[in-house]
Amino acid sequence: MAQPEHLLSNPWFGKGFFEPGQYKVAIERFKGGYDSCKLFLKCVEQRVKIEHDYAADLKKWSHTWQKEIQRCQEYGTTKQTWLASIVAGEQYFYTHSEIAKNLHENCIEKMLQYEKENYDKSHIKHVKEFEREFEEAQKSWLKLLQKIDAAKKMYRESKYKLKTYEAVGEILQSESSVSDEQKRRAKDLVDIRKKESTSQESKYKQLIGEMQNQRPNYEKEMTDLLNQTHDLEYKRKSFFKMMFQEYHDALFSTRLDETLTKASSDFKELLNHHDATLDVKWWNKTYGSDTNTQWPTFDEELDETNT
Amino acid sequence: MAQPEHLLSNPWFGKGFFEPGQYKVAIERFKGGYDSCKLFLKCVEQRVKIEHDYAADLKKWSHTWQKEIQRCQEYGTTKQTWLASIVAGEQYFYTHSEIAKNLHENCIEKMLQYEKENYDKSHIKHVKEFEREFEEAQKSWLKLLQKIDAAKKMYRESKYKLKTYEAVGEILQSESSVSDEQKRRAKDLVDIRKKESTSQESKYKQLIGEMQNQRPNYEKEMTDLLNQTHDLEYKRKSFFKMMFQEYHDALFSTRLDETLTKASSDFKELLNHHDATLDVKWWNKTYGSDTNTQWPTFDEELDETNT
Repeated sequence: MAQPEHLLSNPWFGKGFFEPGQYKVAIERFKGGYDSCKLFLKCVEQRVKIEHDYAADLKKWSHTWQKEIQRCQEYGTTKQTWLASIVAGEQYFYTHSEIAKNLHENCIEKMLQYEKENYDKSHIKHVKEFEREFEEAQKSWLKLLQKIDAAKKMYRESKYKLKTYEAVGEILQSESSVSDEQKRRAKDLVDIRKKESTSQESKYKQLIGEMQNQRPNYEKEMTDLLNQTHDLEYKRKSFFKMMFQEYHDALFSTRLDETLTKASSDFKELLNHHDATLDVKWWNKTYGSDTNTQWPTFDEELDETNT
Repeated sequence: MAQPEHLLSNPWFGKGFFEPGQYKVAIERFKGGYDSCKLFLKCVEQRVKIEHDYAADLKKWSHTWQKEIQRCQEYGTTKQTWLASIVAGEQYFYTHSEIAKNLHENCIEKMLQYEKENYDKSHIKHVKEFEREFEEAQKSWLKLLQKIDAAKKMYRESKYKLKTYEAVGEILQSESSVSDEQKRRAKDLVDIRKKESTSQESKYKQLIGEMQNQRPNYEKEMTDLLNQTHDLEYKRKSFFKMMFQEYHDALFSTRLDETLTKASSDFKELLNHHDATLDVKWWNKTYGSDTNTQWPTFDEELDETNT
């Protein structure tokens, strides 16, 4: 699912850790961890905003429509059921407010606390210290590598010269126009070059040997330092695992289901009481043929105001 | 839960259905039913918009963060789990898109269809017809009421006059200065008023009797018409019950739960595979002490480019 590492623009990829300067990848990892924390925060904050906005929209919707339905001409169980449908539909407000609240309290606040405790000045200083120690541990090693490089170069030059003299010498030996004195002199020069090359070779080999002797020590020192930086990473990764768990629980708490399940069953129960016959009966009693009509009667009373 | 009827501003409340013009409440009910349909549509449309907006925000959020996390420096199972957390969190997009879709298809579209089939021109004509029939049924009844009113007025006037004459007569009878002739004349006048009053009384009583005879017929005619308008109301109320059921199912479908339950368990399974040790091991193999470092070796080869 994740993009392969070699496709990311990453200057550290494909090199050996013990090579010069490569230890900086461990320092970069520390910064990368901090970036991950920041990114996680931003990601969850945006989600919280979305949940908040949705919840606020629902609250407003519910408020508006409860008022509208209250004052409309609808009546009886239909009006009751309608009002209840708004109340049931509003329950998503509570579940999504709960999501926003839990994401905020259990992800954002805890991550901010983690940041505070793990990326403050003292930690940055701590990491600078690591960088200095890596640099220190590599110092004499770098010198040795430079020496090897120089010796290798000298050895190669001497070997090149020797080959050139040997080639010239061979040509001279087969030429009849060349005097014996000249041939002996050419041979002497080849011998000198040979001696010099052998000397450079042994210097070169000696430095390689020295490196092989120092390598276990160098590797150990660097690895020990690296292992100490691993500890920071273990801690961060374990904390992220906890954050993912909290994020999951905030989004998928069974309590959220329960709220909606209750809203659903409450509404269904009320819906069962919706009764068109009952409504029309009520209407008929309030407005229709079951109202009390004032029928004219023979009125004996002499009412002065009416005459 | 619903506001009491008498608190609503309603000119029809508190009158008898068979009183003059009160049948119009049945015509108003038809219009009120149409208003309810319109109100229901508006209410659900607003809800659909809220669900749509939320779903669109989530989709955008998921898209943005999958990209951000892909290209960030995080690695290993942490990166995988992080990406999966976004995918799991995106599942609310599907459930709320489903809510919006179902509200639209099963509430809005069906209500629009109902409106089309029950409040078109032919139905408005049908209701106008009812109004005309009510008016017709009340016509002769109204005439009778007017007659009763007039007779009642006449009877009362005659009775008032009689009482006045009787009072004057009594005073005259006891006065010694009044001649017998005058006294007899006054008595005659009282007798004439008495006769007139008795005649008005019998006219008034006759009309009341007429009304009592006509009333069952009038009530039956009006009630029959009213019952026909009840049928429209039964139909609308039953349809609203169906709409509330559809609304409930759109919001609380168990399929929505299932999607989120699956998202939750999928993510929890992946979270179980989150492993800080594995991540650091991977990092160490890719960047750390388990990488292949190029160590200097004794290099016999003569490489022209290096000399």
